[in-house]
Parts: sequence; structure tokens; C-alpha cells
Amino acid sequence: MSNRLTHLDPLGRARMVDVTPKEPTHRRAVARGRVHMTAETTALVARGAIAKGDVLAVARVAGIQAAKKTADLIPLCHPLLVGSVLVNFQIGDTWIEVEVTVDTVGPTGVEMEAMTGASTALLTIYDMCKSSDRAMVISEVTLWEKTGGRSGTYRREDTNEDIDDLTAVVPDDDDYDGFDRTLDPEASGEL
Amino acid sequence: MSNRLTHLDPLGRARMVDVTPKEPTHRRAVARGRVHMTAETTALVARGAIAKGDVLAVARVAGIQAAKKTADLIPLCHPLLVGSVLVNFQIGDTWIEVEVTVDTVGPTGVEMEAMTGASTALLTIYDMCKSSDRAMVISEVTLWEKTGGRSGTYRREDTNEDIDDLTAVVPDDDDYDGFDRTLDPEASGEL
Amino acid sequence: MSNRLTHLDPLGRARMVDVTPKEPTHRRAVARGRVHMTAETTALVARGAIAKGDVLAVARVAGIQAAKKTADLIPLCHPLLVGSVLVNFQIGDTWIEVEVTVDTVGPTGVEMEAMTGASTALLTIYDMCKSSDRAMVISEVTLWEKTGGRSGTYRREDTNEDIDDLTAVVPDDDDYDGFDRTLDPEASGEL
Amino acid sequence: MSNRLTHLDPLGRARMVDVTPKEPTHRRAVARGRVHMTAETTALVARGAIAKGDVLAVARVAGIQAAKKTADLIPLCHPLLVGSVLVNFQIGDTWIEVEVTVDTVGPTGVEMEAMTGASTALLTIYDMCKSSDRAMVISEVTLWEKTGGRSGTYRREDTNEDIDDLTAVVPDDDDYDGFDRTLDPEASGEL
Amino acid sequence: MSNRLTHLDPLGRARMVDVTPKEPTHRRAVARGRVHMTAETTALVARGAIAKGDVLAVARVAGIQAAKKTADLIPLCHPLLVGSVLVNFQIGDTWIEVEVTVDTVGPTGVEMEAMTGASTALLTIYDMCKSSDRAMVISEVTLWEKTGGRSGTYRREDTNEDIDDLTAVVPDDDDYDGFDRTLDPEASGEL
Amino acid sequence: MSNRLTHLDPLGRARMVDVTPKEPTHRRAVARGRVHMTAETTALVARGAIAKGDVLAVARVAGIQAAKKTADLIPLCHPLLVGSVLVNFQIGDTWIEVEVTVDTVGPTGVEMEAMTGASTALLTIYDMCKSSDRAMVISEVTLWEKTGGRSGTYRREDTNEDIDDLTAVVPDDDDYDGFDRTLDPEASGEL
Repeated sequence: MSNRLTHLDPLGRARMVDVTPKEPTHRRAVARGRVHMTAETTALVARGAIAKGDVLAVARVAGIQAAKKTADLIPLCHPLLVGSVLVNFQIGDTWIEVEVTVDTVGPTGVEMEAMTGASTALLTIYDMCKSSDRAMVISEVTLWEKTGGRSGTYRREDTNEDIDDLTAVVPDDDDYDGFDRTLDPEASGEL
Repeated sequence: MSNRLTHLDPLGRARMVDVTPKEPTHRRAVARGRVHMTAETTALVARGAIAKGDVLAVARVAGIQAAKKTADLIPLCHPLLVGSVLVNFQIGDTWIEVEVTVDTVGPTGVEMEAMTGASTALLTIYDMCKSSDRAMVISEVTLWEKTGGRSGTYRREDTNEDIDDLTAVVPDDDDYDGFDRTLDPEASGEL
Repeated sequence: MSNRLTHLDPLGRARMVDVTPKEPTHRRAVARGRVHMTAETTALVARGAIAKGDVLAVARVAGIQAAKKTADLIPLCHPLLVGSVLVNFQIGDTWIEVEVTVDTVGPTGVEMEAMTGASTALLTIYDMCKSSDRAMVISEVTLWEKTGGRSGTYRREDTNEDIDDLTAVVPDDDDYDGFDRTLDPEASGEL
Repeated sequence: MSNRLTHLDPLGRARMVDVTPKEPTHRRAVARGRVHMTAETTALVARGAIAKGDVLAVARVAGIQAAKKTADLIPLCHPLLVGSVLVNFQIGDTWIEVEVTVDTVGPTGVEMEAMTGASTALLTIYDMCKSSDRAMVISEVTLWEKTGGRSGTYRREDTNEDIDDLTAVVPDDDDYDGFDRTLDPEASGEL
Repeated sequence: MSNRLTHLDPLGRARMVDVTPKEPTHRRAVARGRVHMTAETTALVARGAIAKGDVLAVARVAGIQAAKKTADLIPLCHPLLVGSVLVNFQIGDTWIEVEVTVDTVGPTGVEMEAMTGASTALLTIYDMCKSSDRAMVISEVTLWEKTGGRSGTYRREDTNEDIDDLTAVVPDDDDYDGFDRTLDPEASGEL
Repeated sequence: MSNRLTHLDPLGRARMVDVTPKEPTHRRAVARGRVHMTAETTALVARGAIAKGDVLAVARVAGIQAAKKTADLIPLCHPLLVGSVLVNFQIGDTWIEVEVTVDTVGPTGVEMEAMTGASTALLTIYDMCKSSDRAMVISEVTLWEKTGGRSGTYRREDTNEDIDDLTAVVPDDDDYDGFDRTLDPEASGEL
């Protein structure tokens, strides 16, 4: 990890890092995040999901499209051609989790595409549920995995001692599954 | 609060709610969110903020521009003409908080513009800091205040009993300032 | 009907017609169109529609978003704030029909928003089905109804003697329902 | 031809197909479509075409620009870098035909770019002529040719037995030129 | 004229000025600019203009579309609904001049829409001529007139003593017509 | 230099030049331009630059983002993936100069990306200063250097005899530094 911000030049001015010397390689990034809501609102989404699936279907489309326009949203992000975007959801008792996986062949990574796709999918769920629940919270949006590129593979560990507040963000409720995807699908409704 | 999702019709199909019968009125929404990072990364941003401010200056522009293109990102969101967007930051020890305030005169509220502006500003900080810190987490993105429109004023309460996980998200550390803006500006560096 | 093209000035140069003197009024436009495909492909979509509905759910989102960005696509089209967009589908034996209804309060009509929404929804169905059927044809995209504005209400008649080719476009098969929406919903699967 | 829709995963959820394993090759697609209108409106466009050409010049620009933003309009369409877009028109007695040819070097085909370019060019003609003729119909938008890629060359046949309605769409008037471009240019006004 | 920059708050942070308290009124802005080029290149454009007009027709469309997306390009610019955009050209011996007029009814002016439209039309001419002439210069892009709004009417004077370099920008050739549109149309080819 | 415009086909119709046969190579373009303003306004920007730098920080972001969306603004411009965008400023007594450098690896040059980035950065400065100074002029926007590609390296000479008006645009004031960057940085404030 660098101890300086590569998006600032030595005088502190914003810049796009030059990626032209880098060889195109296969790269993947996985991001996850959650929107917390009341049990009643979660149930409304879940029922829709079972019947026609439109809240999550709309959020899936929004996440895919946002991943494609990441460079238009994040000023210093390089444009690239995403080769694949997958958006999946898990429904808990009082939250919906999104996981976005982005693949590309290119000279730069796709973390921001995955993060932007996840954030936008969560904002879309928020938008569609806000008439029912104004106190929703979007949380725990983070990079889960990154492969390809010079810096090699990164996988998020479950605990991160360096970030004090993070321990607050991750509840220590015994039933909490973190981002564990081995949850009983009957209970959590993978969609 | 409604017990159904107005973005779905009675058959569960996605739709834009019709706002044409609504009179234009002045509306405001305030959203907040945080990106958690190591103390080292926070310090890098803070130092930049004192010198040239480019990380936060770029994130501010990104937040403003994203608020303007909300309807392009969130599928069922109505287009509207934002009249004002303010983006401010607070720097903590291991987090940066953004607050986005959006005003408009129109037939529909600006919650999504504020939420989208806040999310995009946080993603931009994430992008500019990820070479230094890959384990950052975007969290606690939520609507803080909403005024105008038929449903009247909404202000988020500090505790929300209905959302179990939220109590987990809000740490009960005594020093935690929540979104309290009365923080000592010397200590937290309002920017 | 005018016998000149208002988007050209007297010297034949393209221009946006000035709408600033016009009062905002409530306006609506309805457009319809079809994509013709093999019975096998239609069945694949219909099965999806019954199970999870994703082809049509994606096409619905695409139609809504395209209606919102009409002025970005059609060069001389005025920007306006759509107040509502509805996208519905009917499934026939060898076609899927889309109907897009757009409402606004503004100084100019929303025909192009409805037409653009319909075309884009059909293109999206085409995209999602092209691995199964390359010979699909998008057809009969037309304005069905227009209300509001100085020129009053327009409703398309079933036969239009002025357009010779149109009689070719509308098959005289007895079972053909045109755009008649009184079709037996059991048979045609309104979605 | 596949008997499943590759844009849906086995559970029926929308997805972008992963193109990262595919080698970039040269690819081309040609799409055509028509807008039918009264003879009077056609003549207005044709006169303009002779004098300054602005209706078709604007439609040509709109078609090119739409081809470039296809991935922003069609949710599951991959972004790619179009290398060339050509937009040509033929004027008949009561219709204008557009032909859009798109070339690229990339891992995925450009059918959707050609189809989207053709649709948008036709919508633009519709927009510029609608003050004169509200009953116009956009029709017969279809893929005419596709080369490159693993699935090899595809050329549309003049008759397609599999699509019943298509025989209705294609008039059996003896003079009908289909999309034959060998028409007498004096008569049909290739532009 | 203010002696501070209203787009910065008292702490020097960028902001969108709040326009929600302002009443919508009719507003107009006119901007002009030139691209200087060799006499040979100018003649190529002029010949095209006489025959089919495509360089200027494309530049006109580009100027209109850019005016519509000004708020997407200029970060602190308010979104507004342009009611009319006119783009005209004059051809000199070694330059092409563009004039863009934008009208709206709204709470804020359209200077930036006119300026952005003019700049983009000039960039488009540059793009289409650069294979013939790489030394072209875009110059003298400025606001010519502004009406409506609280600050009243502004019209640029031919000489502006306050801007020293401007006297350099405006050549003192006797034949120079400035932006005078009474030029002999035979000589300068108004298009 | 060609004596025809490659963006027009032999019949004078606009087209995108086909770049698919060209090999990707490393390419760079540098464009510069100025906005002239009163000494008072220049001082306001310069003071801001010293304190927080927000006018130029916002203009830098706008220039970078515009470079990324060049193909969306300039109709016949090919989409490409910019690999790096640098935006720098110099402050004179009565002007601010921008220099934009764009790098890519691709089959076509990045002149238009550099020119569009420079124009948009200047428009953004104009927007942020217009409350203080309405008579600002954007001038001397031109390509300064171009490397890579079949046509080899191009560097602008200080004097260009072929463009008559250019001698007018370049003042012969002895103090004028043209685009010379060897200016005393104390005096001109490179940022």
C-alpha cells in the first residue's frame, strides 16, 4: 500500500494517473453493500421478489448501467470497457445485500465499477422503498475481492483491526452472517 | 408511511409515479454518509485539505454533478431542476463525512438527489484514496432531513428502534459525534 | 397539419422551435410498437415473463430511462421534465407489443418521449432475444394518442388511407388485433 | 441459434454476458429501417434534401451519435468503441429508408449499435416531420447483415418463413424494392 | 458587477448558487466565436456549404445538443430547460464565425448555454477540418448580449478598454467587420 | 496535409472515418487556450488559488471529465479510452491559460479530447467568474503538440504565416509570452 495518494501530483493537484504504459490483462472486482430497512419494508420487497421481482430487477438494471458509466461519475476514474457485470441480491430480515462482480480486459482495475454499481443498486432500492420507510441506511459498501493487475489478488478479511469504526459497523449479533454467502437460502432468499 | 411500494403498480410492475397533478413547491433534502479509512489515509486527505484541498474539491464537484444527473442513474426517479446543491465535509480520525443539501422548486422531493450526491462524493474519495487503503468502507448513507411537499418535514432521530441493525451501525462510543455538527472544528476539520 | 417543416427555418436550416411563449399545460402522449419474432422466441420471453419477468422488466426500465433522455438523443427535441412514464407489454403468438404513455406539465408535447421510449424498449427486447433469433423485425412504431396543447387531441384511426404502405404493414389476417387492447388477456398475456 | 436467452442466467435473472474470454476481431453490422409518411411529407423532406439537406443531415448526425451511446441505452449491451458509422438514406414515394453500417474491432458484435443508430435516425426524421404528418409509422427496422465473430456471417434473406407477420410487413407490390439498393437513383433519391 | 465570485462561498469552497428564490422570467443570451483557418480550408467548408452544407449542418446540431447538456459539462451551472437554440454561421476569408442564441423561461440566465453551444460548434468545425489544417485557432468566444433577469440587459460594446489583451484579439484591419452581420452576404456567405 | 475534408464522403455527406484498419499506438496531444478577463477578476481567481484553489480545481475536474466525453459532444469524433488527462493553469495579469495533455493507446489521435478539455476548462472559469466580469473572452484555443500515429509529430510554431488573422490574434506587445511557459513563475503563478 502506498503512503501517498496517486491521484494527486507532487503539488497536490488532481490528475488522472497515466495507464498507457500498462499492459491489458484480465481483471475482476467484487463489491458488496447493504441497505438496512424495517422488517416490514424488507418483507414488501421480498414478496415482490417472489411474485414479479420488480424492485430487485430494476435495481439490477440500475447497477449494471451505473457500472458502465462509472468514468462519467467519478472524475479521475479511467474509462474502460466492462466485459461483464453481475448483480445479485440477498434478502435478510431487515436488510438487502447487493453483490456486484465486474470483469474486464484492460490496463486498469474495475474496483470503482463494482463499487459504483453496488452503490447505485442500493440507491435504487432506497428510491423504490422510500414511500414505505424513510429511515433506511445504506451501509457497508466495500470492495470484497480484486484479481488481476500488477498488485495481485486482494480479498477482504472478515475483521479489520485498523479501522476502529468498522467494528461498530459490523454487529456482533451471533446470527449475523457478515457477507457470508453460505446462508441458508430458504431463510435469506438469494435472488 | 405507506405499507406498499408506490413504484410498483398493483400488479407489481415498475412505474414512475405520476407527479403531474402536484403543485410545485420549495423542497429541500439533506443526506449524509461516511467513508471509513485508516488513520493514515485520513491524515493524507486532511493534509491535502489544508494545502490544496484537491481530494475534497474533486469529491465536491463529483457530488454536485451526480446530484444533477440523479434521474439518469435511478431508473424510476423523476427528472427535476436542482436549484442548489451544497456539499460539505467533516474529517474525523478514521472517517470523512459528507453532507449534501439540495434545494428545488418542483412537484417532487429531492431526497434521491441528496442521497446520490452523497454516495458519489464518497465513492470519489474512495477512488482517490484506494491506492493507499483498500479496506475503506462507505457507510451510514442516509436521509437526514426533508422539508416541503405534502408529507411535511422529516428529521432523522438519533435512535431508531425500528431498525435493529442500525443500532449496530451507530457505535455507542462516548466520543462518537454521530452526525452532530457542533463538533469542535479545530479537532474535526470542517471543510 | 402544416405543409412545411417547422424544424427548418425559411432557408432550410435546422432549428429548435421556440417554445418560450407557450404556457405550460398538462400533456400526454401514447406510442406503440412491436417486435416480431419466431413463435419459439416469443415463447421464451413469455415463459420468462411468467417466472421472473426479466426480459420485459429490463425492457420496461430501458423504455422509462430512454423517455427521460429523449432530448439528448433527438437533436431538435426540447428538454422537458417527464412527470410519468408507463411502459406495458402484450405478448402475441409471434410478437411483443409495447405501449408507452408519457405525461408532463410543460410548454411542449411528449410525443417524442413516448416514441423514443417505445423504440428503446423494443430494441432492448431485440438485444435480449438476438442470441435466439436474428431475424426479428421492429415494426409499427407510431403515435397512438396525444392530448393537451394548442392543437388539441389526436387519436390514431385504425385505417389511414393516406399512407399506402401502411396497409401493407397492417396485415389483414382476421385474427390480427391491431393495437386493440380488448384482446383476451388469457390469450395474449398482458404484462 | 440458441434455444435460450443468453441475457438471462439459469434462474432467469438479467445479466451481461461475459465477453472477456473472446478475442477482438473485426466486426460489422448493417441495419435498415423505414419511416412511412404521406407523399406530401416525403416531398417536403426530399425538397429539403435537394436544397440544403437538413432533415437528413440532422438525422444522420443523430444516428451516428446514438450508435456511439448504445450501451447507455440498452441495459445489457456491452460498451465498445465503434470504429466507423455510416448512415445513408433512400427516399421513396411515401417513405424514407435508413441504412446504418457500423464497424469495430472488438470482442462483441455491433448489431445493437446499427439497430440503435437506425431507430434513432428514423425517430429524428419523425420528430422533424411531425408538424406536417402525425400518422407516420416507423417500420421494418431489422438487421440486414452481420460479419465477424465466432458465429460467422449472417445475411438476411428476403423472405423469412418463420415469421408470419413479416410477410404482412413486407408488401407484395411488384414495384417494391425491399432494401435493394440498385434502385434507379433518379427515382428514389439516394442521399 | 460584483467584486467577489458568487460560485465560491465565504470560505472559498465551490457551490451552486441557490436560484430557488428567483422568479422564472424570459431570458435570452447570444454568444459568438470564431475559428480561424487557412483560406484553403475556409474555401473547402464554403464549397461544402454551397453543395450540401454538411460541415456547418453537423456543427449546428453539435451546438444545439451541447447547449442542452451545458449543466452536465459545467460543474456549477444550474440545469434548465432551453426553450430555443439557434445556431448561425458566417464565413469570412480565413475564419468561420458562429452565433448561438438561446432562450428560456426560468430563474437563471442562459449565458453558459450560449457560450457552450458556440464553443462546441467551433470544436466540431475544427474536428471536421483538422485533416486539412492543424493550425486552426478558436478565438473570440464571448457573450454578445443578455436580456432578462434582475441584472437587466447587457450588450457587448465593440471596444472594451478594461481588457488589454482584447485589443490585441480584435485586429485593426479596416475591413474587419467585428461581429457585424450587415456584411455583404455575397462576400461572407451567411449560412 | 490533405486538401479535402475526410469527414465528408465524395458526395459531401458527413461520416465517421473508419479507424478499424489502424493499429493501436501510443498517442498524445496537447492543447492550450486562454480566457481574458479584467485584472480585478484575475486577481480574485489568483487569490482563491492561493487560499483554496477552488476555481481552478473545479475547472480542472471539468476539463478532465469533458475530455472523457468528447465523443459524446463532437459528432464525428471516435470514442476512445483516454489513458491520462493532465490539466494545468498559468495565471497572467489579465488572463488565465489552460494546458491540457491527453494520452491514449489507440487507433486514432486525441487532439479533440485535448481541445475539448481545454475549451471546457475555460468555459468553467468563465462560468465561475461571470458574476464579476461579463466581458471575458475565450481565445487562442489551439493544438500545441501531437505525437504518435501515422502522420508523426506536429508542434505548433510560434508564427504561422498561413493564417492571416492569427497575426492579429497574437499581439506583438513585447511582454507577450505567447504560450511560452518559461515565464517567471513568481509573476504568473503556475498552478
